[in-house]
Amino acid sequence: MSSFPSSRKVYAPGRIYPGLRVPMREIGIDSGNGSLRVYDTSGPYTDPQIQTDMRKGLAPLRASWIRSRGDIEGQRFLKAKPGRNVSQMHYAKKGIITGEMEYIAIREDLSPEFVRDEVARGRAIIPANINHPELEPMIIGRNFLVKINANIGSSAVASSVEEEVEKMTWATLWGADTVMDLSTGKNIHETREWIIRNSPVPIGTVPIYQALEKVDGKAEELTWEIYRDTLIEQAEQGVSYFTIHAGVLLRYIPLTARRVTGIVSRGGSIHAKWCLAHHKENFTTTHFEEICEIMKAYDVSFSLGDGLRPGSIADANDAVQFSELETLGELTKIAWRHDVQVMIEGPGHVPMDLIKINMEKQLAECREAPFYTLGPLTTDIAPGYDHITSAIGAAMIGWYGCALLCYVTPKEHLGLPNKKDVKDGVIAYKIAAHAADLAKGHPHAQLRDNAISKARFEFRWQDQFNLSLDPTTAKNFHDETLPQDAAKVAHFCSMCGPQFCSMKITQDVRDYAEKLELDEKAALEKALEEKSLEFRQKGAEIYQKI
Amino acid sequence: MSSFPSSRKVYAPGRIYPGLRVPMREIGIDSGNGSLRVYDTSGPYTDPQIQTDMRKGLAPLRASWIRSRGDIEGQRFLKAKPGRNVSQMHYAKKGIITGEMEYIAIREDLSPEFVRDEVARGRAIIPANINHPELEPMIIGRNFLVKINANIGSSAVASSVEEEVEKMTWATLWGADTVMDLSTGKNIHETREWIIRNSPVPIGTVPIYQALEKVDGKAEELTWEIYRDTLIEQAEQGVSYFTIHAGVLLRYIPLTARRVTGIVSRGGSIHAKWCLAHHKENFTTTHFEEICEIMKAYDVSFSLGDGLRPGSIADANDAVQFSELETLGELTKIAWRHDVQVMIEGPGHVPMDLIKINMEKQLAECREAPFYTLGPLTTDIAPGYDHITSAIGAAMIGWYGCALLCYVTPKEHLGLPNKKDVKDGVIAYKIAAHAADLAKGHPHAQLRDNAISKARFEFRWQDQFNLSLDPTTAKNFHDETLPQDAAKVAHFCSMCGPQFCSMKITQDVRDYAEKLELDEKAALEKALEEKSLEFRQKGAEIYQKI
Repeated sequence: MSSFPSSRKVYAPGRIYPGLRVPMREIGIDSGNGSLRVYDTSGPYTDPQIQTDMRKGLAPLRASWIRSRGDIEGQRFLKAKPGRNVSQMHYAKKGIITGEMEYIAIREDLSPEFVRDEVARGRAIIPANINHPELEPMIIGRNFLVKINANIGSSAVASSVEEEVEKMTWATLWGADTVMDLSTGKNIHETREWIIRNSPVPIGTVPIYQALEKVDGKAEELTWEIYRDTLIEQAEQGVSYFTIHAGVLLRYIPLTARRVTGIVSRGGSIHAKWCLAHHKENFTTTHFEEICEIMKAYDVSFSLGDGLRPGSIADANDAVQFSELETLGELTKIAWRHDVQVMIEGPGHVPMDLIKINMEKQLAECREAPFYTLGPLTTDIAPGYDHITSAIGAAMIGWYGCALLCYVTPKEHLGLPNKKDVKDGVIAYKIAAHAADLAKGHPHAQLRDNAISKARFEFRWQDQFNLSLDPTTAKNFHDETLPQDAAKVAHFCSMCGPQFCSMKITQDVRDYAEKLELDEKAALEKALEEKSLEFRQKGAEIYQKI
Repeated sequence: MSSFPSSRKVYAPGRIYPGLRVPMREIGIDSGNGSLRVYDTSGPYTDPQIQTDMRKGLAPLRASWIRSRGDIEGQRFLKAKPGRNVSQMHYAKKGIITGEMEYIAIREDLSPEFVRDEVARGRAIIPANINHPELEPMIIGRNFLVKINANIGSSAVASSVEEEVEKMTWATLWGADTVMDLSTGKNIHETREWIIRNSPVPIGTVPIYQALEKVDGKAEELTWEIYRDTLIEQAEQGVSYFTIHAGVLLRYIPLTARRVTGIVSRGGSIHAKWCLAHHKENFTTTHFEEICEIMKAYDVSFSLGDGLRPGSIADANDAVQFSELETLGELTKIAWRHDVQVMIEGPGHVPMDLIKINMEKQLAECREAPFYTLGPLTTDIAPGYDHITSAIGAAMIGWYGCALLCYVTPKEHLGLPNKKDVKDGVIAYKIAAHAADLAKGHPHAQLRDNAISKARFEFRWQDQFNLSLDPTTAKNFHDETLPQDAAKVAHFCSMCGPQFCSMKITQDVRDYAEKLELDEKAALEKALEEKSLEFRQKGAEIYQKI
């Protein structure tokens, strides 16, 4: 845990499933201030007891639960037996609390029954493909902690397999709850295989990207069969959620022509091009029920894509965007008839005053299926800083009820993120998600703020660093002005210097207030005593003669 | 303009005051897309026609307007003649449109009369000490562009005079509208002199810091006389607004003892310590009317300090904070009776759900005097990233009506900001202010987003960089993946590669939509023609026999 000094990995056991070991990070706090347990997405990599080996992948912690349900078959990969449905929603609707559900209940400090109920009613999803037994179950829903997603992936012009696996572990180390592999170019299958086998978090993809590679990038040559086979290939590998742009309907496409930025979703534009070339309806829409059959055989969740999302402030909340959202609502109903889990993707670029209506419309149209937004960016004018322009929108929409926030890195619109960008994006989004949890009144969120504020106020510098999202950066910044070790225990800092510290002065206020209270108490006692004396002097009778 | 390639400094003339030259930055846009003028805070430093010399300071552009009003006297420094009031509010209430007001009207593209009216009713302030004739007038009020303030200043343990002047010009280069010099330690007077003489923006201070130095840091040895003399000393130098903590009343102080983080304002805690030591009311409160007399003799604006602001999420919106705010509302009334300009300082640390009520209460209690907040930070858990935790809160409160956002740098809580931190803080706050302007529906804000989005969509990379808040960073990020010059004109980027670009595909959509429209038009014409033919064939009579 070199990134998190004074932290250690601890595991909480299950009750229904006693074999469960739910990981948490316990931050030690100095001088009798106990410790604080925080949600931990980093997987086995931060457990010194576990040796990890990228070539072998992580241990399949869910394997026994999955097999024990008796509804799967297969050796090389698992699949539901004919006619069976292995989705968490299906179990939930049947009243079954799965291992995944109890695991999540412990992680989130809620009851397993609450978790089951939220999944059954579609208000939360557990993305957990049966072919990704290595993942540590997590939940996406607005009655749980707000989650964040990190996008990684190689492209035709940059990056390698090793780099992408490293970005994935790096993203989860800093707090990514899910990771999307958006690789394009060659080696898509292989890159994904390495990522999944080594990932402690659910992996999502946009299958149309790989399908397009199979037809050498010519969108018009795509077919339903190629696409379907790609879905199956990825489901067998263990992808836990698919972005599927089934809301990009032929009739919506011409409406984008008048926009400032037309169609900016890669998937959306591929479907648009196909639809125009053939003058036919989107094949993911016309084959939607067949897709549902695939999803439920592996428990892949839908991430219904917003292929027509706005790509600029100017295009936010337009008729195209909301028409597609209505269609996604219709598709949600169909998926739920198959007991397939669904979340809904959302924008993108939205000025602050138009964010709330996005959340409200999504909840209404999609019957409270979890919302998953990209940012939104609250202005277009700061390329190079879009982790900030979008963290503002992400925090707000998280507060309003968005369940999963897709990070944006400083490289957005400019290039592929490197490791530094991935970390900057994850930290900005941990801030947004946590600020949202606080605003929603989550008690655990408040505990961490209180612990760090108390440490700050008491000049426990190391505790302040250790309790923060990024201890090393905080410590390094402090070192820049006051590098001495002594300064880490000093009751002042470089902002004010030794003579001049407001926090030091506050101790005087506390002493004064205490004295004041004592004085008041003493005064009261003295007054009572005097009254008492007077009473006794006057004969100690209750009713005095007047 | 090496930081802003393709930009040039232009000046707009006045009408009422023909001598006015109001600076703007004009960003050239490629290929017939014209240019965009943006608000410019950078002063003469970005005008290649002007030679600046730190030892000589900037040219006193306001000198002639100030003298022409005939109400001042003095040689070494200026001061109102006995019985006169030189505040912009005083002129505004008398119906006078000053040079400063017209300058601002041109900068903000509004009418001079509107500016005058907003200042007269106290809903906006023009911080413009008559002894800082070098400043380029600007306005703070919620019916104008949202402004940002950058804090600089040396402390006993770090930094030099030159560094602080450089931080000031650096901050204004990136967009700081005002700068506060929060120097402590030695050389306060000298540091401030250098900063003011070289600053194109109004300078604010917290005079109690210097007063405390005069008594060797012993708060209890402060006196009204020492404080008053410090106010006069700074007013003579040209400070345009003073943070004065006259709302820190003796009776509020013990209430802070139960907080998680007590009193965190430096100024607030100094006053608290003095009040407790003497068991007397705050001398800035008891001498408030005398302070007003000083303010109006130089046109220094009040920035009524929130010495009891919350220092943590836990303490946000508590009784102490709001009690002080009510007192600031009372003091505003007194200042306005003297025609002295007032803005009100606000928090600090506030979770998102409690931000709006801060703005509403401030407007109500302080009768719409402009609000000036520090962030607020929306969580305490990210030291090292507090420019982001606070940009979220700043953007929101800016949207709700806050007029001036005090930046927070990544070093907040950890150390003194260096140049990089100053820039990071300014950019984060330009984003917050601009996002707020957009959400408020400011037409000029929207223009810039539209221009950059259009450039992005049309693969005009250089325009996208040039129109952004920080062109060099945007270009460098793009260079990291695609350093070739050719890539700057390429119709693709590293995210998707050449085959795979959504924006490219959108052009197909546009062509299709255009064809569709033509087809529809053609179809309509054809149908009309058929009907016409049928009509003619049937005898061309309006009323057919049935």
